[in-house]
Amino acid sequence: MHTLDLHSGTSDDILSLDNIRSVLQRLEDTIVFQLIERAQFARNQKMYEPLAFKELEEKEGWKGTWVEWFLKETESSHAKLRRFEAPDEYPFTDLKQLPKPILASVEYPPLLHPHNINVNNKILDYYTKQIVPNITKKFGEDSDDGHYGSAAIRDVEVLSALSRRIHFGMFVSESKFRSDPASFIPNIHSKNREALAALITKPAVEAALLIRLAEKARVYGQDMNRPASKDDEREREAKIEVEEVVKIYKTFVIPLTKEVEVDYLLTRLQGLSPEEVQRLSNQPPN
Amino acid sequence: MHTLDLHSGTSDDILSLDNIRSVLQRLEDTIVFQLIERAQFARNQKMYEPLAFKELEEKEGWKGTWVEWFLKETESSHAKLRRFEAPDEYPFTDLKQLPKPILASVEYPPLLHPHNINVNNKILDYYTKQIVPNITKKFGEDSDDGHYGSAAIRDVEVLSALSRRIHFGMFVSESKFRSDPASFIPNIHSKNREALAALITKPAVEAALLIRLAEKARVYGQDMNRPASKDDEREREAKIEVEEVVKIYKTFVIPLTKEVEVDYLLTRLQGLSPEEVQRLSNQPPN
Repeated sequence: MHTLDLHSGTSDDILSLDNIRSVLQRLEDTIVFQLIERAQFARNQKMYEPLAFKELEEKEGWKGTWVEWFLKETESSHAKLRRFEAPDEYPFTDLKQLPKPILASVEYPPLLHPHNINVNNKILDYYTKQIVPNITKKFGEDSDDGHYGSAAIRDVEVLSALSRRIHFGMFVSESKFRSDPASFIPNIHSKNREALAALITKPAVEAALLIRLAEKARVYGQDMNRPASKDDEREREAKIEVEEVVKIYKTFVIPLTKEVEVDYLLTRLQGLSPEEVQRLSNQPPN
Repeated sequence: MHTLDLHSGTSDDILSLDNIRSVLQRLEDTIVFQLIERAQFARNQKMYEPLAFKELEEKEGWKGTWVEWFLKETESSHAKLRRFEAPDEYPFTDLKQLPKPILASVEYPPLLHPHNINVNNKILDYYTKQIVPNITKKFGEDSDDGHYGSAAIRDVEVLSALSRRIHFGMFVSESKFRSDPASFIPNIHSKNREALAALITKPAVEAALLIRLAEKARVYGQDMNRPASKDDEREREAKIEVEEVVKIYKTFVIPLTKEVEVDYLLTRLQGLSPEEVQRLSNQPPN
């Protein structure tokens, strides 16, 4: 089972590092798949420029971009089904613009401390300015194939997966905080971001991730519609450049996840009584 | 370039068998990817039963299933962006329930003869009764993980790709009809489905497709999150059973595509004058 069972798991099960790791690894597959799907279309820069489709403004009053409109439409349907009540889902659209859920709320076990973290603006910005141009390079910087709908569907998929991946860092923070609050508390009080980052970072895990990701991009990105040379599938043409996929994680996903993780830790004691903080400070690590 | 450029290509370019083949092969990748994505969630049979979520009826007046509601919502957004004006896109939702496009129409080159073919009801039925139970077998027949939103997003992706693949058969029919109308016309007049099917079928191409598809399912379905035995990636665990993917094409996609292809051919002379039919009958094959 790769999916976090938020509906029937206990807090301890959900926040176990084994479970978190399997969710994050399965999300790598989704991100690689959906990047490959997006990379079959041209850059289509028009989709990322505000007011580039005048009908969206005239008929829908929409002043943002084509892709932001697609995100708003998609997230509106999903909001009705209470997607954004789940502690691992964060919308790109302002919650005030989204409809209320029509389904009754689900009871989630207590997982995250209350917070207001949402870095989707940063994700959309990097995606538009870096990821799309890089993965569509083969078509050219000014490439436009008119497939705005198909490309935007992929954009929404990639963006949602990246968002879930990056915000999932808060589960890592919460899990590690719970297992040893005494180590975190002084650094939270002193707002020592570097020390907090060091407490949740394992360089060996990051290195292994990048190796695994490169292998996924190589294997899943093989173009099996062209003949392999010498019957060796390692020689097949690639639908996406392995280095581009690795770069997305190395220069963006991992650093931004860490930022989210530390931001979350900095809010972790808010609203707790001094007695409660004292109790946590005295709790032995497990 | 794998995508049919409906916006700038000429009819001849778009209907070339080379172009059609590359679109169909690229769609195989999408179908395999999205099946793998769906297969990470449980069967969730409740999503496919009408009125199983009473709030959808109470608050949205929706008497269909959860997945049909998702299709309607998704297709409503896409309809505004004129998706269903494209000659290779067919909605699952009744067109009368979908909003009008807000974008001005695109001029497509003349491609298909006017027709009313839409087999999406058959696709949804087979998908619900055969594909979903088969690809989620590992979780059990009654498996339910509560991930109805995530699973439905994948359902919509698989269904849209299957629909595009199967209806694309009409491009095959049109292409082959144009290259040799004289061979088709007597069989259209006599409604000889078998003869028409024989004119558009190449058993060697179908056999090659099934081999290629099995290879795609094997390669793209590798679970790279678990260690490979003996460093041989052919031994990795599979996220989807290769035989299930092949079966979907063999018992469903290929036969239903053929049905669509023949149905289309049977309407191909409607509205033509006797003189036009005569002219086509005299046209030498190319």
